[in-house]
Amino acid sequence: MSWNDRNETLGDIAESGFTLSVNGREVPGVYWEGSKGADRLVLLGHGGTTHKKTEYIIDMAQRLCAQGIAAMAIDGPGHGDRPESDASGEFGDRWSTGGGTQAVLEDWSAALDFIEAEKGTRPTGWWGLSMGTMMGLPVTASEERIKVAVLGLMGTWGPNKEDLKRLAPEVSCPVRFLVQWDDEIVPLDTCLELFGMLGTKKKTLHGNPGEHAAVPVFEIAGSVEYLDRYLR
Amino acid sequence: MSWNDRNETLGDIAESGFTLSVNGREVPGVYWEGSKGADRLVLLGHGGTTHKKTEYIIDMAQRLCAQGIAAMAIDGPGHGDRPESDASGEFGDRWSTGGGTQAVLEDWSAALDFIEAEKGTRPTGWWGLSMGTMMGLPVTASEERIKVAVLGLMGTWGPNKEDLKRLAPEVSCPVRFLVQWDDEIVPLDTCLELFGMLGTKKKTLHGNPGEHAAVPVFEIAGSVEYLDRYLR
Repeated sequence: MSWNDRNETLGDIAESGFTLSVNGREVPGVYWEGSKGADRLVLLGHGGTTHKKTEYIIDMAQRLCAQGIAAMAIDGPGHGDRPESDASGEFGDRWSTGGGTQAVLEDWSAALDFIEAEKGTRPTGWWGLSMGTMMGLPVTASEERIKVAVLGLMGTWGPNKEDLKRLAPEVSCPVRFLVQWDDEIVPLDTCLELFGMLGTKKKTLHGNPGEHAAVPVFEIAGSVEYLDRYLR
Repeated sequence: MSWNDRNETLGDIAESGFTLSVNGREVPGVYWEGSKGADRLVLLGHGGTTHKKTEYIIDMAQRLCAQGIAAMAIDGPGHGDRPESDASGEFGDRWSTGGGTQAVLEDWSAALDFIEAEKGTRPTGWWGLSMGTMMGLPVTASEERIKVAVLGLMGTWGPNKEDLKRLAPEVSCPVRFLVQWDDEIVPLDTCLELFGMLGTKKKTLHGNPGEHAAVPVFEIAGSVEYLDRYLR
């Protein structure tokens, strides 16, 4: 469990790489914090076939840091800089080969342990769509340190749908859930069903026209406002 | 077409009653404006079995006037102070006896004509849920003066469902559409279907847990912000 030398600066934001060893898995991660520090933290879950530093994850990290919120991301199972990553593999295979939902829970908890040991304990939230919800819904359901989550673009569908259906009723923190009305990847009705299964009473669904990846910019900005409000 | 003497003051808001004659129908209405004036206008459509001055309509008028937006409401077909109002009648009968969708279109256009003649032409929006959408969706589709609308709690359902299905594709202005996930009156799937049929590309659905009348206060506040933003 240690910082590595994969560091960058993005304006006044320091980006620091780290590498964890979790039950024999090498887990590459990254942490962002603005120069004025941060009194809150959001975990960023990337989507399928992308990675912890894909463009929209960097964008979210920058938006969060501008609000005084630190951000952290790790590569998901079979993705990014993972030793077992295989960008040519089918998505479901990559998820399973990487250890699936159980590995996701272990990896994110270990990453949060590491950041808390290094930076202290802070109010913490989750942001992640699509595969970021395949990871984030189980983490939010299982990890009491997550106090609010932005989820979406996922349904009772995909390689861990049984885990999602089992764990959705256990989510108890406030959730904003984004869906795309013309989602060509995850069927809309399965997304609406998964939202309906979330156990929390504080949940709001935001639906917009467009395909899977066409989430409007105002929803991205709105999700930062939402996390900011609930982590205060 | 004239102001009547049913006037009130609500803090610094002047409430002024008016009565219109539209194709032989007597249409009672009310207009609200803050003491500092208003450079925009929102039409407020009340829900079934209520009336133009029901508690949440007054609340909306106050929220709007606080933003420098005037508000106007009329009683819907068979409701409130309408001569043909029959509070003991079945909802569908009251709607039809009052003239249904065609009368709604005529009455609201006449009311907007009257207010514009008296107060000038201003950027104008619609807010109305449930029967407020049975009225508001046709008005928004047909009336070019409506530039933005908050609709919801209604579906491909009820006494004018065929009108709603026919006119939804003709709505072209930005729309925020509210649904309640546990709606015990208007089935959720019909609400989602009606949202899907709206022709505008700028539409967002907000869904929350709870029954028909349990729209969260943050959505009420949020809908005022939404109208405020689009009418600027």
